[in-house]
Amino acid sequence: MAERYPFPDLNTLPEDIQGRILAVQEKAGFIPNVFLAFARRPAEWRAFFDYHDALMEPESCGRASNLTKGEREMIVTATSSANHCLYCVVAHGAILRIYEKKPFVADQVAVNHAKADITPRQRAMLDFAMKVCLRSHEIEDADFAALHAHGFDDEDLWDIAAITAFFGLSNRMASFAGMQPNPEFYLMGRLPREKKPTTWTLSNQ
Amino acid sequence: MAERYPFPDLNTLPEDIQGRILAVQEKAGFIPNVFLAFARRPAEWRAFFDYHDALMEPESCGRASNLTKGEREMIVTATSSANHCLYCVVAHGAILRIYEKKPFVADQVAVNHAKADITPRQRAMLDFAMKVCLRSHEIEDADFAALHAHGFDDEDLWDIAAITAFFGLSNRMASFAGMQPNPEFYLMGRLPREKKPTTWTLSNQ
Amino acid sequence: MAERYPFPDLNTLPEDIQGRILAVQEKAGFIPNVFLAFARRPAEWRAFFDYHDALMEPESCGRASNLTKGEREMIVTATSSANHCLYCVVAHGAILRIYEKKPFVADQVAVNHAKADITPRQRAMLDFAMKVCLRSHEIEDADFAALHAHGFDDEDLWDIAAITAFFGLSNRMASFAGMQPNPEFYLMGRLPREKKPTTWTLSNQ
Amino acid sequence: MAERYPFPDLNTLPEDIQGRILAVQEKAGFIPNVFLAFARRPAEWRAFFDYHDALMEPESCGRASNLTKGEREMIVTATSSANHCLYCVVAHGAILRIYEKKPFVADQVAVNHAKADITPRQRAMLDFAMKVCLRSHEIEDADFAALHAHGFDDEDLWDIAAITAFFGLSNRMASFAGMQPNPEFYLMGRLPREKKPTTWTLSNQ
Amino acid sequence: MAERYPFPDLNTLPEDIQGRILAVQEKAGFIPNVFLAFARRPAEWRAFFDYHDALMEPESCGRASNLTKGEREMIVTATSSANHCLYCVVAHGAILRIYEKKPFVADQVAVNHAKADITPRQRAMLDFAMKVCLRSHEIEDADFAALHAHGFDDEDLWDIAAITAFFGLSNRMASFAGMQPNPEFYLMGRLPREKKPTTWTLSNQ
Amino acid sequence: MAERYPFPDLNTLPEDIQGRILAVQEKAGFIPNVFLAFARRPAEWRAFFDYHDALMEPESCGRASNLTKGEREMIVTATSSANHCLYCVVAHGAILRIYEKKPFVADQVAVNHAKADITPRQRAMLDFAMKVCLRSHEIEDADFAALHAHGFDDEDLWDIAAITAFFGLSNRMASFAGMQPNPEFYLMGRLPREKKPTTWTLSNQ
Repeated sequence: MAERYPFPDLNTLPEDIQGRILAVQEKAGFIPNVFLAFARRPAEWRAFFDYHDALMEPESCGRASNLTKGEREMIVTATSSANHCLYCVVAHGAILRIYEKKPFVADQVAVNHAKADITPRQRAMLDFAMKVCLRSHEIEDADFAALHAHGFDDEDLWDIAAITAFFGLSNRMASFAGMQPNPEFYLMGRLPREKKPTTWTLSNQ
Repeated sequence: MAERYPFPDLNTLPEDIQGRILAVQEKAGFIPNVFLAFARRPAEWRAFFDYHDALMEPESCGRASNLTKGEREMIVTATSSANHCLYCVVAHGAILRIYEKKPFVADQVAVNHAKADITPRQRAMLDFAMKVCLRSHEIEDADFAALHAHGFDDEDLWDIAAITAFFGLSNRMASFAGMQPNPEFYLMGRLPREKKPTTWTLSNQ
Repeated sequence: MAERYPFPDLNTLPEDIQGRILAVQEKAGFIPNVFLAFARRPAEWRAFFDYHDALMEPESCGRASNLTKGEREMIVTATSSANHCLYCVVAHGAILRIYEKKPFVADQVAVNHAKADITPRQRAMLDFAMKVCLRSHEIEDADFAALHAHGFDDEDLWDIAAITAFFGLSNRMASFAGMQPNPEFYLMGRLPREKKPTTWTLSNQ
Repeated sequence: MAERYPFPDLNTLPEDIQGRILAVQEKAGFIPNVFLAFARRPAEWRAFFDYHDALMEPESCGRASNLTKGEREMIVTATSSANHCLYCVVAHGAILRIYEKKPFVADQVAVNHAKADITPRQRAMLDFAMKVCLRSHEIEDADFAALHAHGFDDEDLWDIAAITAFFGLSNRMASFAGMQPNPEFYLMGRLPREKKPTTWTLSNQ
Repeated sequence: MAERYPFPDLNTLPEDIQGRILAVQEKAGFIPNVFLAFARRPAEWRAFFDYHDALMEPESCGRASNLTKGEREMIVTATSSANHCLYCVVAHGAILRIYEKKPFVADQVAVNHAKADITPRQRAMLDFAMKVCLRSHEIEDADFAALHAHGFDDEDLWDIAAITAFFGLSNRMASFAGMQPNPEFYLMGRLPREKKPTTWTLSNQ
Repeated sequence: MAERYPFPDLNTLPEDIQGRILAVQEKAGFIPNVFLAFARRPAEWRAFFDYHDALMEPESCGRASNLTKGEREMIVTATSSANHCLYCVVAHGAILRIYEKKPFVADQVAVNHAKADITPRQRAMLDFAMKVCLRSHEIEDADFAALHAHGFDDEDLWDIAAITAFFGLSNRMASFAGMQPNPEFYLMGRLPREKKPTTWTLSNQ
């Protein structure tokens, strides 16, 4: 269905958007499709990527987070799989592999996070993220207590919830618009000596 | 659970955020809680309300939309109810009543949109929104065709999907953070001669 | 779909039914639609309202109950919302507001009873009612123990279960027959100084 | 859990209830447990059995029905199985076998009505009953049209819906109270030459 | 739909299959339909019944099991009901009645195993089987611990899981192919003095 | 949980099993874990792999099939993902990539087969497989007609159903036993010039 919403020509985009896209392209070596798919509506594009950066690159807005980059991508991969979003599972699974330096972790988290090779703390984090994803209205004090027991504080829980909620938005739009992952993502982080990890940085989606 | 994430003092907020909040307060007569609840993280606040305005007040970013203001709020009310989000059902149900000038429509849409006093076109719009909300991965060409038959074009469908997806984010955050609706919302638009409709405007949430 | 089952003319109804309906009208100021919708089948009408009164007005058959009038309506509102029954959520939500003298409680209980401004005892009562409503075959001793811990005894549990089960019947019939709430219900109990509370009594539905 | 709600002594019951129970016992040869389980609350007992008779024995209140006795029991068996109600599946499955003179039909309808040896008209009837049972809020004009195509009229649909709704009440109470089927029901109607069919009549539950 | 896949003529089947079927017929007095329904594909037939025998008649391959014959059939009946498989509920419910010498247990386990007249150990066994049937990906250490507390060891859990998994295969094929239970199964084990128990043996399905 | 059921020493296994495992190892270059995980129970092992070969390598038992090798693996990958089985999604996703010579298809089919780069015929095949996997009791004539329209005959439907049903067994056992995919599977078929395709043959799992 992607042809309903064709990608705009990069050259026709507002300068600020062009600039941010070119910066991503320089670092990643290609333009992840989400950057072009959403660019047809510049105001939504800016809000989407501002939100993304505020949550996924907290340093970019002067905030520290106890979640590692890999843990943030783990949340995205697990909840995007629950939402059956092809783009996000493949794209963020790739980034997860790179950050965690674990070539198998994305497939494990996507199919069944309970069988993944992750720490008990990360397992608890994903259990909570799945509840935000699927049954947010049932979140209760006991859920907070369970994560506090693993060393997470209330700011960390906000991070987990917000990342889950934000990518729930992204998942629905990607499925709706028929967004396909770039071919590059499928293999990223799977080979023993990945060439790209140093160049793939926080500002990439 | 709201006490986990207390509202910041308005005076301590960045000037731009203060300004936007005061503008809302002037028009609405009170500050809807979401404006304060999210203000503890200014970067997320700005992205959230930029996104909100881009979708709910397209004129504010120079875009026209075939959806009426009331139809947009109808989508929010129906899908927020599917997500069991108390804040959004009550707050946006209030705005829906005002825009539609129908004191019963919000309760109808929240409990069972199939029994609501709305047009067949609006019914089709809400059926689609519910699918984006609950089963976005199953959206297919037939869903587009069904809405085209009611006069919606692909830009309208993007609007419906994006509003649903954005408030899915909002719903999850409000439930997670225990956000309560302001008392004012419960009664707004229910009385025969509502005093406020002219002052409640698009920039209010 | 309501036109499939038009309301009978009040004057054509059996005398006993006419009498009970007129008594309700006198107290409430209007005839709640359920009284007319079911009157097309007098035998079912009598059984329905006898059952209703036995559960919702136990004093009328010489039985005391530890549940307050408000708590009984709370059960109806929460479970009717789970069944997406427009008539019952709006009508019984109205009565709930009046009995509890809380203008917000019905909307809270309908959207997400876990976020409602009710006591822990009432929360436990509604958790149990929701289980009877949605998964009655899984009720087990632990459910009884949980409510005993809040001071409910086995007669109270019978009340909670029976009210839930009875309105499950009512919900299905109202949705099937397309029954619409009377306009009066939408606003009842929402205004600070409700004029009607003294006249709205136990024998009204 | 049945011991929570022990059966009252028949001799202590109000005379009208005693009378009706003895009449059932004389015809059936035993007292079905539901008659004793509900007798602890006479007002609810009377309403329950009045409702039951109005729907399951319409002749008793001067109403004709196009549904056969067997079809009514078929609805009860199918929907009680969907609600996992042991008492109703076993007791009404027994009566179904007798009325239909088909020793296998109850097990078929309980496990999967789509594989049962019934007519296409009965299959459509049960499809509709299952929708009333499980998703009553989604009933729409198309459901009526589907049954009209099989010769059912709107009164028949009311019967199907009301029987389903009434036994949904019964199912929830039986599961809640731990009601067990009488041993006699398990075998009734399974043997080639059942002795009882002529004595098991409409007023038995 | 059974006519899509007609039963082959017994005489046309490979000798080994003929032999095994005739042996079953001699013991049971009839040929259970599954033996003929699957015989159209001999390689699948052999694998299916080899698997069946390895799990349901462990002695036949030199393995002991702590599960009784009745307990194995209890697992089949409960999980086949969850899968709505008419053939397996009726056929294995029959064998369950015979092995347990309890004429009611199959109906109880099929409708709601939580209300069945079985031991707490058997209840725990069926709870676990239902989890394997419906949510196998959520099985965790706590499930093992719960069964260990009832005296089951890890080999017993393998048996429970494998029987559940194997009949999940059988259920899907029987529903797909429209396989009907033989009339004989419906009544087996229901009469006080069943004639067949000594002749119905482990090698019957 | 895998340590509950440690792999037996290959040298201690029955000769026929050793032989089949060594043959697989020679072709694949490693022993897929399922061959060792199930070997602790030789009779079940033999039945499992006989069944597997009868369905996945029909030529091995003298049967032709209209499904290609790739299509069979596509069914396994899609339904194993619906069952959240890590072992089968990763192992059979690998074989799927090799047979189809499409490095992306396994991830697509696992996340959302409706967005996969497959033919309409394959899409219909997977829709049917998902129904067998999740709602086999609802399969009806219309499902057969839908696949006939794509050129499948009733033998092909048996293949689709049986493969789905068999791997439903495999999925439950793998999740129960905590079976992990061999590391080799994760990367197989993802690189442009895969070295192994000619040596990976039908008898490998």
